[in-house]
Amino acid sequence: MSETTVRTGAGPAAPTSGALQPLGLSAVTLDPDGLLGAWQQRSAEATLPHCLEQLEVAGNIGNLRRVAGAAAPGSFRGMWFADSDVYKTLEAVAWELGRSGGSREALDELTALLEAAQDDDGYLNSYFQTDHRDEQWTALVWSHEMYCAGHLIQAAVAASRAGAGDRLLGVARRFADLLVTRFRAEDGVCGHPEIETALVELYRTTRHRPYLDLAARFVELRGRGLLGDEPRFGRHYYQDHEPVRDSTEVTGHAVRQLYLLAGVVDVAVETGDTGLLDAAARLWESAFGTKTYLTGAHGSRHRDEAFGDPYELPPDRAYAETCAAIASFAWSWRMLLATGDHRYADELERVLYNGIAGSTARDGTHFFYSNPLQLRTGHEGSHEDAPSERLSWYSCACCPPNLARLVASLQCYVATTTDAGVQVQLYAAGRIETTHGVIEVETEYPWDGRVTLTVTPASPESEWTLGLRIPGWCGSATVDGSPAEGPYADLTRVWEAGDRVVLDLAVHPRVVTAHPRVDAVRGCAALLRGPLVYCIEQADQDARLEDLALDAGQPVESGTGEGPIPVVLRARGVHTAPGDAPLYSAPLSGGPLSGGPAAGGSVPVTLTAIPYFLWANREPGAMRVWIPLTNGPLANGPLANGPRS
Amino acid sequence: MSETTVRTGAGPAAPTSGALQPLGLSAVTLDPDGLLGAWQQRSAEATLPHCLEQLEVAGNIGNLRRVAGAAAPGSFRGMWFADSDVYKTLEAVAWELGRSGGSREALDELTALLEAAQDDDGYLNSYFQTDHRDEQWTALVWSHEMYCAGHLIQAAVAASRAGAGDRLLGVARRFADLLVTRFRAEDGVCGHPEIETALVELYRTTRHRPYLDLAARFVELRGRGLLGDEPRFGRHYYQDHEPVRDSTEVTGHAVRQLYLLAGVVDVAVETGDTGLLDAAARLWESAFGTKTYLTGAHGSRHRDEAFGDPYELPPDRAYAETCAAIASFAWSWRMLLATGDHRYADELERVLYNGIAGSTARDGTHFFYSNPLQLRTGHEGSHEDAPSERLSWYSCACCPPNLARLVASLQCYVATTTDAGVQVQLYAAGRIETTHGVIEVETEYPWDGRVTLTVTPASPESEWTLGLRIPGWCGSATVDGSPAEGPYADLTRVWEAGDRVVLDLAVHPRVVTAHPRVDAVRGCAALLRGPLVYCIEQADQDARLEDLALDAGQPVESGTGEGPIPVVLRARGVHTAPGDAPLYSAPLSGGPLSGGPAAGGSVPVTLTAIPYFLWANREPGAMRVWIPLTNGPLANGPLANGPRS
Repeated sequence: MSETTVRTGAGPAAPTSGALQPLGLSAVTLDPDGLLGAWQQRSAEATLPHCLEQLEVAGNIGNLRRVAGAAAPGSFRGMWFADSDVYKTLEAVAWELGRSGGSREALDELTALLEAAQDDDGYLNSYFQTDHRDEQWTALVWSHEMYCAGHLIQAAVAASRAGAGDRLLGVARRFADLLVTRFRAEDGVCGHPEIETALVELYRTTRHRPYLDLAARFVELRGRGLLGDEPRFGRHYYQDHEPVRDSTEVTGHAVRQLYLLAGVVDVAVETGDTGLLDAAARLWESAFGTKTYLTGAHGSRHRDEAFGDPYELPPDRAYAETCAAIASFAWSWRMLLATGDHRYADELERVLYNGIAGSTARDGTHFFYSNPLQLRTGHEGSHEDAPSERLSWYSCACCPPNLARLVASLQCYVATTTDAGVQVQLYAAGRIETTHGVIEVETEYPWDGRVTLTVTPASPESEWTLGLRIPGWCGSATVDGSPAEGPYADLTRVWEAGDRVVLDLAVHPRVVTAHPRVDAVRGCAALLRGPLVYCIEQADQDARLEDLALDAGQPVESGTGEGPIPVVLRARGVHTAPGDAPLYSAPLSGGPLSGGPAAGGSVPVTLTAIPYFLWANREPGAMRVWIPLTNGPLANGPLANGPRS
Repeated sequence: MSETTVRTGAGPAAPTSGALQPLGLSAVTLDPDGLLGAWQQRSAEATLPHCLEQLEVAGNIGNLRRVAGAAAPGSFRGMWFADSDVYKTLEAVAWELGRSGGSREALDELTALLEAAQDDDGYLNSYFQTDHRDEQWTALVWSHEMYCAGHLIQAAVAASRAGAGDRLLGVARRFADLLVTRFRAEDGVCGHPEIETALVELYRTTRHRPYLDLAARFVELRGRGLLGDEPRFGRHYYQDHEPVRDSTEVTGHAVRQLYLLAGVVDVAVETGDTGLLDAAARLWESAFGTKTYLTGAHGSRHRDEAFGDPYELPPDRAYAETCAAIASFAWSWRMLLATGDHRYADELERVLYNGIAGSTARDGTHFFYSNPLQLRTGHEGSHEDAPSERLSWYSCACCPPNLARLVASLQCYVATTTDAGVQVQLYAAGRIETTHGVIEVETEYPWDGRVTLTVTPASPESEWTLGLRIPGWCGSATVDGSPAEGPYADLTRVWEAGDRVVLDLAVHPRVVTAHPRVDAVRGCAALLRGPLVYCIEQADQDARLEDLALDAGQPVESGTGEGPIPVVLRARGVHTAPGDAPLYSAPLSGGPLSGGPAAGGSVPVTLTAIPYFLWANREPGAMRVWIPLTNGPLANGPLANGPRS
């Protein structure tokens, strides 16, 4: 790929080298009738205004106004890193502006406010500019000062790339220059990674090398004990237990780990540090080999919002924070661009349609912070981190603005390009413009596996390759009726205007089981269809959800759902009332194994499953992705999708 | 039972009415060659001195010295409720003094210190007497002021009952009188229950009715929202979400819930409030029916140290706090005394030998705070709440002194009495003195099920009943060779000196499975023998622990262990290397179900299991109580112990 320079028009993550190149902010238009396009539209119309409103209600903007002298003095409100929610929302505003040309009112107003609030030396953090001035830079371990700076920088980079001018970039650069001045000499890292990727992105937009150097320095300094001993959770919590370069296992606070690794890839790519990129690839294997939920989500523990031990993946107490899923998406995207390895794209798709999409209610204004794969009957939902339904806002409201900024730039992740052609990574109805040509995509994916692509080449005689990703979950694909092999079906042609290609991805219902070391879902299976994980929800079942079992020996069928659920799955199973079985007992001689339904007293039932991302949009009730299996054998038939399934 | 005025000489929990009566502090002597006696001796010789030493090292006693002016001014050290650890240790010293006549030096010194530190109005709390005087009584929700007062009172009651004089009782009463004065009028409860049971015990020792009235008032005021909204965990956290009398489910912070319920029983018994006792019984069914680990431990969540939802019982992330097990023991003991129902005694035995005993290392000076039922290969053990090995002390060191106070009074829980006779509740080598007569107990229980009891009646001609508990786990028992039925084998005789009774409890290895709704251990079984839960530990296996499965169709055999493990269990199983199996995959057509080992490539192995309470006394490594089952059928034979197993 050719090196390019500064980047107006670029989307999030604009590396100057790598196997694949991202498309610009305006290159792809998502059709609002498609799933991704509708999500993006809903986010623009509902989620983003909701975030702006809540930042007022919750006091985030008021904190900045008080620093700027634009409001009466008062106490700081919210979490001490509340500024970051403002920045993430601003980033969403900027991407939205670049995408749809929407209103720039919020951007201009907030930029003016930030200019007014910023100290002369560039410092900006409303918590440490109110009652806590003497604490500036005194406690990097928890202060989130550079974390907030990172989000400011990312917002400013987005505004610049979106063509909204460089006024916010000026604010960000003044703060970044202060960081360079201070931390070029001083050994220190932030307790919460985020500044690393932000500084590289700022470098990409400004070509100012000290930003990249500082990011690289922060990566190198991590894992050397500069943050001291975290008294409750240990140094693993913020990945200060060992240098990234030596790490073999993702650990600690999931969002911290994943933001760090996105920045690690950014640094590795811009500095040509292959050893560092290898470390990121190794850690990616650790994450996706032993510590990832079926939904693509990360983080098994509520206690410290952490990755747990390998194979520790409880569905009910999955923390699976929305922000971790977004961070994971950012990391895999960078790995894909750097290496071109399709497996990263597979994970992008998985986490997008499940771990991320499931966070947001159909109204676009209610969100899960934690995204469990099971909710029990009788769940006590008074905790903010384990509610029975999505909430409209959070005391720590990191997730909703994070969703807004991702979804406002969602079109940027649909395809990549190289000198040799175009790679379609995610299938969504819309239009892809590249230097090679324009590709119109018609599809009802993921509900239907047919994707029709109509090509208009940029020049009439040059040959280039249209690469169509065959997802790892897909056991059978055809292009124009002929069997197609993955990971990419590469169509190399001299394209003519109007050339049509029909890709058919088999989206049969699938049954998957987990690695035997995933104790928490032993004896269970999950239902999937295409990229979508399905779940069973109490609203669709007569019997108590916990007492249902799946007969995976019978075929699972797709069916038409009601209302907003285009496709449901129907499977055969049994209901077994446990009666007054004791909590622990000796199995009767010749009787059933633990956890399976009793041999007698089981009633056949049909299990109706809905896409996981649509759960909890009806009355609150039990839900589960992993369904206990009856003890019958797995039958041949539509479940056997071959080795790639 | 006749009402008594049990004072000097009583043990912990001395109700004035109830179905059964506890024995006094000196009534039972445990043989130090027996398991319970050895534990008690080790606690006296190692644990208690260790606690006293650590209270100095960690600063708990220094905090009090500074308040008393006996040390240079300085900052408060440790958790704000650090005084409570001093009090619990003092309580242990007192019980130990009453039991063995040990040194009273620590008791006298600390009592003098507390007298010097106590304010004129009776207030005593070294955190709120140093830098936080203006915060006294301002934040009952988190202050633990009454929690600490409760432990002071319990220590003083113990000292008084142990015959160590009433000087500490004077300190406690001055504080209790302050509480009565203040809270007789003011509506307030402590965020952490404990004062309730303490005030009732103080009433029992002093017959001063206002203490009982205040305890009853605290019970009634709870659940009325006086503590406000807990911002992270909700009101369930401290059981302020609904009145105890209306509650149907144990919930929230496990230690808080269980201490509260011990106090609820105390209040109910002393006030004759059957409705309140019914509520406690109902909540006991909730706890033991849906929220109790196989080890008798409670608390499924690390996040808020809480009971989880019904059937949410993950073995790896079991919080299972030692203090919760001790609190549960206290609650079940009170329920047993109040009702005489043997099921409470069954749970006393289970939690004592497993959930409590497993907390302490063989050296008596290392402890688990959290007691998981599984530790994974590669466990990251840097968290204090999830270490790979027991630690010598904790930043929140509530558990070690709690253990010391329980074990110092362990002999008090061995037997109960009524006008009609004596009930042996726990089998331990030793001597039981009652008003009906003396019972010498010889046994190697729990390693062996034979218990030989030799009776010397107090008077030659009166008839009384010796009740021998047949544990719920025991499928086959005999008395003097004749089949014996539970729950108690009642032997009603005119006893003659030297009469011997031989009880034989069958301690065959047993296999148990969990209720089908306990998702976390589906497809697994656990091994038990007698009252002991067993586990497999990496040190005894060649293959990685996670890749072993149990063939429950083959007999499980008892065998002689090495060193301190008298009896191990040996079972047949298989090892199946998972190879490079992906984290999630479609099961091959006709292949094995999820979580079971692959059909091919399994190697037969012998699984050696050791008592759970002895785990983690060798090199750190993986451990599991629940072992995945091979898919073979459960065979007839020694596993089928009948319906009571």
